[in-house]
Amino acid sequence: MTATQTHTVLNSQALLEHWQGHRRLTRRVIEAFPEDKLFSFTVGSMRPFSEMTKEFLKMTEPIAHGVATGEWKDSGPELDSVRTKADLLRLWDETTEKLNAIWPTIPARRFADIDKAFGQWESSGISIILYGIDNEIHHRGQGYVYLRALGIDPPPFWER
Amino acid sequence: MTATQTHTVLNSQALLEHWQGHRRLTRRVIEAFPEDKLFSFTVGSMRPFSEMTKEFLKMTEPIAHGVATGEWKDSGPELDSVRTKADLLRLWDETTEKLNAIWPTIPARRFADIDKAFGQWESSGISIILYGIDNEIHHRGQGYVYLRALGIDPPPFWER
Repeated sequence: MTATQTHTVLNSQALLEHWQGHRRLTRRVIEAFPEDKLFSFTVGSMRPFSEMTKEFLKMTEPIAHGVATGEWKDSGPELDSVRTKADLLRLWDETTEKLNAIWPTIPARRFADIDKAFGQWESSGISIILYGIDNEIHHRGQGYVYLRALGIDPPPFWER
Repeated sequence: MTATQTHTVLNSQALLEHWQGHRRLTRRVIEAFPEDKLFSFTVGSMRPFSEMTKEFLKMTEPIAHGVATGEWKDSGPELDSVRTKADLLRLWDETTEKLNAIWPTIPARRFADIDKAFGQWESSGISIILYGIDNEIHHRGQGYVYLRALGIDPPPFWER
């Protein structure tokens, strides 16, 4: 075996399950926030967790759609009118269904193909998908700090 | 195309690069902390970022070693005597080399094989590796909140 030998480590079905598992955890974090704190509480002049959640919603469907089709557009849910936790959770669940629906339409080659995501980020399909997942993990971790600062136990990280 | 069709989306070389890219970012976050704050500053009764960093070091080499060999042991660096940022960064760089050295020895089948990681977590090799990476992203995101609360700009998330 040489240092340059490569093996297949992940297939598309496992990646979707990985992503949706993280999204289920993020949903539990949204639920853990008291309604008013979700939209107002911050630490260190950062955004409230509702705004981070909106960012995840702005990225998830458009990333899947862009990798599937090569068309990079603002195809996520309409977020301007979102004022309640129930609104966020409803859009969250709609996005879950949309991601499941788009996923099997992604052609095999698009995971490796280099594209200019959103006309800006030159990257393979798999890299932009992992970026979306990682961005959600990153900011959700910040939501955990908000919950701890509020004296609320966040959901276990390993539960998906 | 059917909903159950799966494609290869990631190979082992790309996964190593993905992991080391995240580890390079974590290194910049360690560097961004003032020495005393690294070991003392917290929000919401959480751990200082030095303790999170030690957790990453406790997981990285043992996960790679365990997936490579099926032997789950506490093979990471000795951390009890760590008192300075320089110590942490030195161990960080040693772990970078160790991860690079272990990686090509992982047999192809071990990414899919189910094992009981650390005698406790029944999981495929790829799942335990992704868990290690995700855990680092999660807690590093918390380090970003600490930096913001200290009035320090963290490194850009997209730089790897």
